[in-house]
Amino acid sequence: MSKEIQIYNTLTRKKEVFTSIVENHVGMYVCGPTVYGDPHLGHARPGITFDVVFRYLKHADYKVRYVRNITDAGHLENDADEGEDKIVKRARLEQLEPMEIVQFFTISYHSAMEKLNCLPPSIEPRATGHIIEQIEMIKGILENGFAYEVNGSVYLDVNKYNEKYPYGTLSGRNLEDTLEGTRDLDGQSEKKSPVDFAIWKKASAEHIMKWRSPWGEGFPGWHMECSAMGQKYLGRNFDIHGGGMDLVFPHHEAEIAQSNACNDCNPVNYWMHNNMITVDGKKMGKSLGNFINLEEFFTGSHAKLERAYSPMTIRFFILQAHYRSTVDFSNAALQAAEKGFNKLMNAMETLQKLEPSEKSTYDVNELEQNCYAAMDDDFNTPILIAHLFDGVRIINSVKDGKESLTSSNLEKLKNVFTAFVTDILGFISTKGNGENDLTNEVMELVLKLRENAKKNKDFKSADLIRDELDKTGIQIKDSREGSSWKLK
Amino acid sequence: MSKEIQIYNTLTRKKEVFTSIVENHVGMYVCGPTVYGDPHLGHARPGITFDVVFRYLKHADYKVRYVRNITDAGHLENDADEGEDKIVKRARLEQLEPMEIVQFFTISYHSAMEKLNCLPPSIEPRATGHIIEQIEMIKGILENGFAYEVNGSVYLDVNKYNEKYPYGTLSGRNLEDTLEGTRDLDGQSEKKSPVDFAIWKKASAEHIMKWRSPWGEGFPGWHMECSAMGQKYLGRNFDIHGGGMDLVFPHHEAEIAQSNACNDCNPVNYWMHNNMITVDGKKMGKSLGNFINLEEFFTGSHAKLERAYSPMTIRFFILQAHYRSTVDFSNAALQAAEKGFNKLMNAMETLQKLEPSEKSTYDVNELEQNCYAAMDDDFNTPILIAHLFDGVRIINSVKDGKESLTSSNLEKLKNVFTAFVTDILGFISTKGNGENDLTNEVMELVLKLRENAKKNKDFKSADLIRDELDKTGIQIKDSREGSSWKLK
Repeated sequence: MSKEIQIYNTLTRKKEVFTSIVENHVGMYVCGPTVYGDPHLGHARPGITFDVVFRYLKHADYKVRYVRNITDAGHLENDADEGEDKIVKRARLEQLEPMEIVQFFTISYHSAMEKLNCLPPSIEPRATGHIIEQIEMIKGILENGFAYEVNGSVYLDVNKYNEKYPYGTLSGRNLEDTLEGTRDLDGQSEKKSPVDFAIWKKASAEHIMKWRSPWGEGFPGWHMECSAMGQKYLGRNFDIHGGGMDLVFPHHEAEIAQSNACNDCNPVNYWMHNNMITVDGKKMGKSLGNFINLEEFFTGSHAKLERAYSPMTIRFFILQAHYRSTVDFSNAALQAAEKGFNKLMNAMETLQKLEPSEKSTYDVNELEQNCYAAMDDDFNTPILIAHLFDGVRIINSVKDGKESLTSSNLEKLKNVFTAFVTDILGFISTKGNGENDLTNEVMELVLKLRENAKKNKDFKSADLIRDELDKTGIQIKDSREGSSWKLK
Repeated sequence: MSKEIQIYNTLTRKKEVFTSIVENHVGMYVCGPTVYGDPHLGHARPGITFDVVFRYLKHADYKVRYVRNITDAGHLENDADEGEDKIVKRARLEQLEPMEIVQFFTISYHSAMEKLNCLPPSIEPRATGHIIEQIEMIKGILENGFAYEVNGSVYLDVNKYNEKYPYGTLSGRNLEDTLEGTRDLDGQSEKKSPVDFAIWKKASAEHIMKWRSPWGEGFPGWHMECSAMGQKYLGRNFDIHGGGMDLVFPHHEAEIAQSNACNDCNPVNYWMHNNMITVDGKKMGKSLGNFINLEEFFTGSHAKLERAYSPMTIRFFILQAHYRSTVDFSNAALQAAEKGFNKLMNAMETLQKLEPSEKSTYDVNELEQNCYAAMDDDFNTPILIAHLFDGVRIINSVKDGKESLTSSNLEKLKNVFTAFVTDILGFISTKGNGENDLTNEVMELVLKLRENAKKNKDFKSADLIRDELDKTGIQIKDSREGSSWKLK
């Protein structure tokens, strides 16, 4: 049983015992994807991190309302001249429709999350679906005197705000730091101070997505949607707000300011942030050639990848690190994670076949307590996995007759593994479901056969294997460490 | 090649040659599900019908923007007393949140559509995401004098409308018929005439989903969303609007009225309606015990079902009838459809293995022309399937050496089958469910290697293959026709 869950709160910079606002209920909001591109590791990490938080809180018998938004209010622009011409012709269908792009990438995102076995959130609100709620909140901020309108745009008056509420509590920046760090020139001339930020922007003629408002045609500032949707579905003050560390400033800081300014109420009790991801020690970036999207991992179709890695390998790899640590992706690290994952899942299978004995040589209760203690300690999944590997060692020893478990202890061990491996960590066996792992295993056999053929100087067979694989779209790479394969 | 597509237009009650408004582009709007319940046959039929229309128009080289909405603006109500009490306690999380229900059933709907191999529409707008657009349209109707406000609700003034535009053109009802058929007492006392319908409704205190508007807190009338979203994404006048026949009146009739009243512009050129579904000769109904949802078909878990029927069997069964005919579901009919589907897919497989001859005894061009002619004739899928079965007969005769095809004719036949069976009808092989194609192909190679090893009396390799596959969970079956494999 979970005793008490400690959560590291970015707001206070320490671990705190989690107490929910409403007994047995948790309201959790997590910043979701902007659906204008392929889902990548930067989506996988918060997706998996907060999926495990969601699963563990449910396991601890909370009724959790998990809200994760879809940011679909993009800032696409028409070519002004062409746009006008087409409007004259009323050829609506020939124009770029941002919602087609949104639909395409929302489907990719959902598909990737499903493959990673992330449970769908309870509610998945869209920014464009909550323009009214955002306008209402902006009106409230204006009424309270914490914002001003200039030329059809509305800005939050950070200096004014700072007189009543301390600005920068989440990020630990004070107003002077912020002022120094301000580089954004957008709307600079209109703003009273460079630290002010737009909560409503006037739309130019070229701007495609825009709505009527009390301030003319425009669109909400990008921090508004989370404030408005969090409040709508979870209340003015809710339990947990999660997201990537890169969102602490300015996004989450702005959310706090918007809520205080509108409702005179602190919106969130516990702020949780997952750390960032690097690839081969470098920040991911399109210009660096190390920007690998999730589908490329799953199929191995990126030049940096030696082969495909299953969604469960990715999931295992991410959970092998604590969510507040950085994670570096490399082929070696992923291959190690794959081995670890397979070892764990093989033990799950072995466990089902173990026979009970008269006495136990191992304390399953202690294992269970250790597992709960790890998760209660700010969702420490690497420690949890280490404890589960203690269990794996025992499972294999019992199989080999070196340790023994009574019938009730065996039952208990099965329950512990089902709870922590399947329900909480969300690992599912990829055997026999036709996913990459099956191909991987069969390919391992094929490579072994080719190795044997070469050893036996049966070059006909070795060539046959290479040629047939080639037809299938599989390329074999030979190196000193042996052979590997990847999709062409 | 498609020559010219004829579409039966509900508006004119005859088949018309299809001409798109913008050259090479088609805008198509189809009424989607109300996501407050499990997806059932009433969702499958329009889903599949308009999927085939979408596929065929794309095959005919149109760039199609296919919009299908999600109706998520439900009319759930709180218990007033309890609701108030909870608002006082600010226990937001304990309240019913309609969007949780919406999320749950949207996911089920998408999952069912994916299983039925219906392509996702280009845009899938939600009613609650377009409240502003609906309000704007209501304002327009009021400004043009075709609506009036009473106590915070807005009604379309049908008599006034009928003075300028004929009301009832789509359903063939005149105003007197409509007056007689009116039984809806909702808001009767407020309305000038019983035929008037609400385009905005004032929300009672118990109503959960409501928005601020120029007429107070309320929600749009249920016909508004399709008018507003169709116009937003396809323009004021677009090509095709589809839906079930039960939507002709009042829903689609109301859509026409709303668009004319707001824009003085006929919204849709071609109205298409699929016919209804019965189960064992009776209308589906929860009280009749014959209300079977799609998941129950797929798993066979409903008392009326003798066993499970695959999504492809359902798809084949629905497409065996023309979309404007009724369809009656029964175990016998589904089992017959399953046989037909398997026969067709087996022929697809056989086709890939046929050997060419010096001369052809069969005219593939004629078959191709027949297939196009069937689809050009108001998407006549049963006739198309009949022609494809002519092809199946030839494929099997060629296999048996009773007919022959030249190499170029064989290529052509393959192209015809791929185009019509896979691309247009959207049938996919369900064989080897659970394995992906790559595993299948690699396994084919493995079986070949084992065959070779046995031939060469290299039993060590043959056994290695069997044992290693066994570990992976793959079982090899040897028979006279050769070896095959399956997951254990």
